[in-house]
Amino acid sequence: MSTHFPNQVFPVYWYEDHVRLIDQTRLPNEFGVVEISRSDDMALAIKTMIVRGAPAIGVAAAYGMYLGAREIQTDDREKFLTELEKVAVKLRATRPTAVNLFWAIDRMVKTARQTVGNVAFLKESLLETAKSINAEDIATCEAIGDHGLSVLPQTPEPLRLLTHCNAGALATAGYGTALGVVRSAWREGRLERLYADETRPRLQGAKLTTWECVQDGIPVTLITDNMAAHCMKQGLIDAVVVGADRIAANGDAANKIGTYSLAIVAQAHNVPFFVAAPLSTVDFSLSEGSQIPIEERDSVEVYQVGETRICPPGVEFYNPAFDVTPAHLITAIITEFGAIQPADLIQFHEKQVG
Amino acid sequence: MSTHFPNQVFPVYWYEDHVRLIDQTRLPNEFGVVEISRSDDMALAIKTMIVRGAPAIGVAAAYGMYLGAREIQTDDREKFLTELEKVAVKLRATRPTAVNLFWAIDRMVKTARQTVGNVAFLKESLLETAKSINAEDIATCEAIGDHGLSVLPQTPEPLRLLTHCNAGALATAGYGTALGVVRSAWREGRLERLYADETRPRLQGAKLTTWECVQDGIPVTLITDNMAAHCMKQGLIDAVVVGADRIAANGDAANKIGTYSLAIVAQAHNVPFFVAAPLSTVDFSLSEGSQIPIEERDSVEVYQVGETRICPPGVEFYNPAFDVTPAHLITAIITEFGAIQPADLIQFHEKQVG
Repeated sequence: MSTHFPNQVFPVYWYEDHVRLIDQTRLPNEFGVVEISRSDDMALAIKTMIVRGAPAIGVAAAYGMYLGAREIQTDDREKFLTELEKVAVKLRATRPTAVNLFWAIDRMVKTARQTVGNVAFLKESLLETAKSINAEDIATCEAIGDHGLSVLPQTPEPLRLLTHCNAGALATAGYGTALGVVRSAWREGRLERLYADETRPRLQGAKLTTWECVQDGIPVTLITDNMAAHCMKQGLIDAVVVGADRIAANGDAANKIGTYSLAIVAQAHNVPFFVAAPLSTVDFSLSEGSQIPIEERDSVEVYQVGETRICPPGVEFYNPAFDVTPAHLITAIITEFGAIQPADLIQFHEKQVG
Repeated sequence: MSTHFPNQVFPVYWYEDHVRLIDQTRLPNEFGVVEISRSDDMALAIKTMIVRGAPAIGVAAAYGMYLGAREIQTDDREKFLTELEKVAVKLRATRPTAVNLFWAIDRMVKTARQTVGNVAFLKESLLETAKSINAEDIATCEAIGDHGLSVLPQTPEPLRLLTHCNAGALATAGYGTALGVVRSAWREGRLERLYADETRPRLQGAKLTTWECVQDGIPVTLITDNMAAHCMKQGLIDAVVVGADRIAANGDAANKIGTYSLAIVAQAHNVPFFVAAPLSTVDFSLSEGSQIPIEERDSVEVYQVGETRICPPGVEFYNPAFDVTPAHLITAIITEFGAIQPADLIQFHEKQVG
């Protein structure tokens, strides 16, 4: 884990003999750390969204596997592996759609099976693997952040960046993807201020992104989503940086609802629009964005804010959680391997795997 | 007052010997009617936004002038006019920026001064003038609505319209401007459904527009502002209709924040974008939209929804209440005299006044 940025936000981290989670359900009005020493508690924490964000969930589940392993009272290797599989089943059931969850649990199971040694050594190896998954995710985010520096506009004055939702430290093991780029720019003295879309309906921009900025001392201005175009027209925004939930092979990118709208208004004002995401976000099995399924969520997210119901009975609702930004609106996709033009994704991938 | 649409919403109306106001501060969760028999109570109702929307305020103030006149205990005409001026001063002080307020009060004062007859007859004339202002505003809105029918897309299937904020019956004496077009389309069987942007930060779309639709039985779907582009991409929107607060002579239109963004995404999807407003909204003294001052409002509107604070301390805010949509993004401006191309406004005005 990097130490050169000591005050940064780590939503999941190993401390002495347990995991500490930032309780994201209580942000931004309360900051609380939950200490997790048992795998059951980790399963509950993932289920109740104390930890959220696909990469962060993966890291949390990896530690959950180790905590489960530590609880197994046997010296018999086969019995140990059987019990460990039960822990995996329990953790897999927490958030059925999170790909990183399955990937991390599978890697932990594989570590246990492939490591030669007694049960005590297996347990030790599992903790080391969980720590590796943790450290790799942070390293990926830091690489994304630093590669962002080469494509952000080269201006004499520090930049005013705009982001949407929370592609931040809180959604990863730390540092963030879109907010990784923001952090790197801030570290290098190239950032004046971040504008954060509040990101209705769930308000992750208002609740999480601004909170992260305040922790790191990054100046942040909160706006409602519909103000972005007006801000651009007034020359307040030099570039937009957002995350992605899934990217098709042609560069079309699915991200939080509102991202597409932002990309259109950015182009209308000649403001560069960047997507920051690990290369693993690209689903090369999908040729274009229209193949990405769009989750529709519960309408309560639209009609209720906190305890306040904002509309009368008798109204219908539409609540798509994501939208797809076509590749032609994306200036570059910033990955841990560098910034890539959307049209070059396939070629880049072939070079990598080839 | 029209009777052909008996269930429509009248935020201000004369009933027997008093004014009834829909209490807009309690919508949409409670419907309450406030009965106003004294000019002091009307001043308070305007001040506390029980009645809001520039045209509606004008009508309310006109009735307030009559109620004040009724309270004056004299048969002496000059004494009466002096006392009436005191009522005018009181009512003018309620909402210092509402142009319609001053216009309506001045018209009432002028009526009293120019009417020949005793005090009892002056009082009668004042009530008739207030009723005329009321009826004229509704007639203007109905004309706007009906003229909208000629420019809305001619499609075999009923239309799906999208609106922003509340340019509805509640903001006028009844029927509305943008919602006037929606109502006329609904009456003629040409409307399938209205999509209503919630309109952050004050949520007038969620609170008022959906409420009006429910009253009139118009099917309405509430979305967050950032979903509009996604809806258009999916082919759910046939046209956008919004109101305007002020229009420059070149057709640039100031309206609620978010309107500009909506106009950009509409053009990107070839969705026609209409502004519905009385011709009096055009300020021919301004050659272009950049001359329209944009009010910045209190940041509490951004960081708090109902009782819920949505972001942590240490964040800055930006809260422009309006933005300006350039004329080239506006398909037509729908007025009580017909739909006008933005570029033809000046010519139309010269023909009218000449």
